[in-house]
Amino acid sequence: MPNTAVAVAAPPERLLLGPGPSPVNQRVLDAQARSMIGHLDPWFLEVADQVVEMLRTVFRTTNRLTYAVSGTGSAGMETAVVNIVEPGDTVIVGVNGVFGGRIADTAQRAGADVVALEEPWGRIVSPERVASAMKAHPGAKMVALVHAETSTGAHQPLEETGALLADTDTLFLVDTVTGLAGVPLEVDDWHLDVVYSGTQKCLSVPPGLAPITFSEKAEAVIDRRSTTVRSWYLDVTAVRRYWGGDRAYHHTAPISSLLGLHEGLRMVLEEGLEARWARHAEVGQLFQEHVQDRDAELLAQEGHRLPQLTTFALPGDVEEAPLRKRLLLEHGIEVGGGLGTFAGRAWRVGLMGDGATHANVDRFLHALDELLDG
Amino acid sequence: MPNTAVAVAAPPERLLLGPGPSPVNQRVLDAQARSMIGHLDPWFLEVADQVVEMLRTVFRTTNRLTYAVSGTGSAGMETAVVNIVEPGDTVIVGVNGVFGGRIADTAQRAGADVVALEEPWGRIVSPERVASAMKAHPGAKMVALVHAETSTGAHQPLEETGALLADTDTLFLVDTVTGLAGVPLEVDDWHLDVVYSGTQKCLSVPPGLAPITFSEKAEAVIDRRSTTVRSWYLDVTAVRRYWGGDRAYHHTAPISSLLGLHEGLRMVLEEGLEARWARHAEVGQLFQEHVQDRDAELLAQEGHRLPQLTTFALPGDVEEAPLRKRLLLEHGIEVGGGLGTFAGRAWRVGLMGDGATHANVDRFLHALDELLDG
Repeated sequence: MPNTAVAVAAPPERLLLGPGPSPVNQRVLDAQARSMIGHLDPWFLEVADQVVEMLRTVFRTTNRLTYAVSGTGSAGMETAVVNIVEPGDTVIVGVNGVFGGRIADTAQRAGADVVALEEPWGRIVSPERVASAMKAHPGAKMVALVHAETSTGAHQPLEETGALLADTDTLFLVDTVTGLAGVPLEVDDWHLDVVYSGTQKCLSVPPGLAPITFSEKAEAVIDRRSTTVRSWYLDVTAVRRYWGGDRAYHHTAPISSLLGLHEGLRMVLEEGLEARWARHAEVGQLFQEHVQDRDAELLAQEGHRLPQLTTFALPGDVEEAPLRKRLLLEHGIEVGGGLGTFAGRAWRVGLMGDGATHANVDRFLHALDELLDG
Repeated sequence: MPNTAVAVAAPPERLLLGPGPSPVNQRVLDAQARSMIGHLDPWFLEVADQVVEMLRTVFRTTNRLTYAVSGTGSAGMETAVVNIVEPGDTVIVGVNGVFGGRIADTAQRAGADVVALEEPWGRIVSPERVASAMKAHPGAKMVALVHAETSTGAHQPLEETGALLADTDTLFLVDTVTGLAGVPLEVDDWHLDVVYSGTQKCLSVPPGLAPITFSEKAEAVIDRRSTTVRSWYLDVTAVRRYWGGDRAYHHTAPISSLLGLHEGLRMVLEEGLEARWARHAEVGQLFQEHVQDRDAELLAQEGHRLPQLTTFALPGDVEEAPLRKRLLLEHGIEVGGGLGTFAGRAWRVGLMGDGATHANVDRFLHALDELLDG
């Protein structure tokens, strides 16, 4: 039995400054080590209610249908898309990086006719462009935009499009996997209808859950579906009976992960949501200034840069991958490589959640200087 | 900010003898509290490889495509179904409890024509019945059976059907969510093609992951698909590039949960898989004898009872729900209520993983006697 010889998996220390996961506080990790309990236990159902209530606070919403999908951020994306889309629906999707492309792909799998609003990587999709797409497709079932494009660092404005769609039958779907708790987001005030996130970015909770919220307008659209949702696992018409309703068994909730999220949300609210946004803004801006001082080129559109996720081309004609490997193995710092059109030349640096500190900026810059000198 | 007042979630002590989650050893829980690390970190990729290798040992397979789905057992079910089924396929499903019904539902959502082999709850689906359904539908894409019906306690024989299907183009899909590591399962020897499980049953790991394995025959069917898999999140043609291939990013793996599974699998292999099967068999049989001594009626078919999950009708005309509540709140023991046709009169008692001990049988019986006397 050679397998019995597998050693304990004790992770080496890493400073996580990539596109996710972000650093996780030991308080949150310890919450995942608490003793197991049933997903229908009255004690656990109270904890689940607290998670929902804290998620509403972080999403800035009073939406009834708010919960954590039992899967990673991508499962949140799929939940959002497949519960809204029916075959033949027209869906307008902003595609200016990896994650808009995924929404378009998932919507197509659900049978949608996708109108892709493509923009070069790093650019936002302008509200004007969305408005003109709406004019061309007034019966669109939904418009989907990525609030915080993790592949490019672009910070998509949402407010104007939300106001535009509020007076129509079209829903507004927003991917804020990397946005939530890192930059301002106002689900109710901005008229966002289906909004999902991930835990492993600015919430600083391990990956495995996807916070999601549906407006009343979105719930009404789901209630009027004429076809069954194509996914059994992600079907909110069933899942909401556990989270919001009579506690009917659907699938076993990921208990430990939810205890971790519970503690992570407590930490977010201890800091205060607005203070957290301000911390991300300040640390990220400082970081971007320092990176530019080193002749690195920021790749996201000026005026629309996420503070929590910076993409930049390394100065000179340095090859990024070997340098990134040395950063990890010699300095213990993880950053991400560029994806898509940024592959080979860019880094993605996340200063998210617990990672957004001046000390981390200093440590990263010090390591970078040493690597560039060497 | 009333939310900042949410207290730490410290679970009360419970003895988990329901249909899952089962008790989790502190070693496994502690593994979930280890420091966060990236899902593409070379250290973590080695751990992921070890998880795959240990899963192969537990599944008794050499299947290349073996991994843990980033979701609960139900996500494993959906992964199995949606990657195989294309619209118009005929699928034969044994429906003798909740979980066969779910497979049928999910297959229908994926566009299949479902041939349901219905049996009364608690009965198995006989190999003869499967064989005759195969004669009636020789072009069936797959046959699906539930190895361990968590809703009834029935223990489905698989070997004969596996041998029958091995010589055909039909795939054999098996749900062993409650079976894996609790009763014998031989994926390769029994010619099972798509087999999934959950972590929170006989593996004694928290819920959140679904071990799954695909035979070469199943992989070939997937490679010949003429339509795109309807789910993006669960599409194995993409996911296998992370788990088996070039480590391409698909979605962020649930790191902490995988560290927990890693430790849980180490514990299974320390005990030895066959010793673990024997422990479940012995403890379960003893339990069922004691329960019958108390005039409780076992509801699964004689000769086909799972040792790890027992359904029984309480003696006399006791109402089950109030008694179950007292068992939880006064004795700290969780068991499950009956589902479907067993609702209102039955209990489901799991002696799974770490829970399958003589001491737990004694503690349960002592509490039961007290409640029935009271």
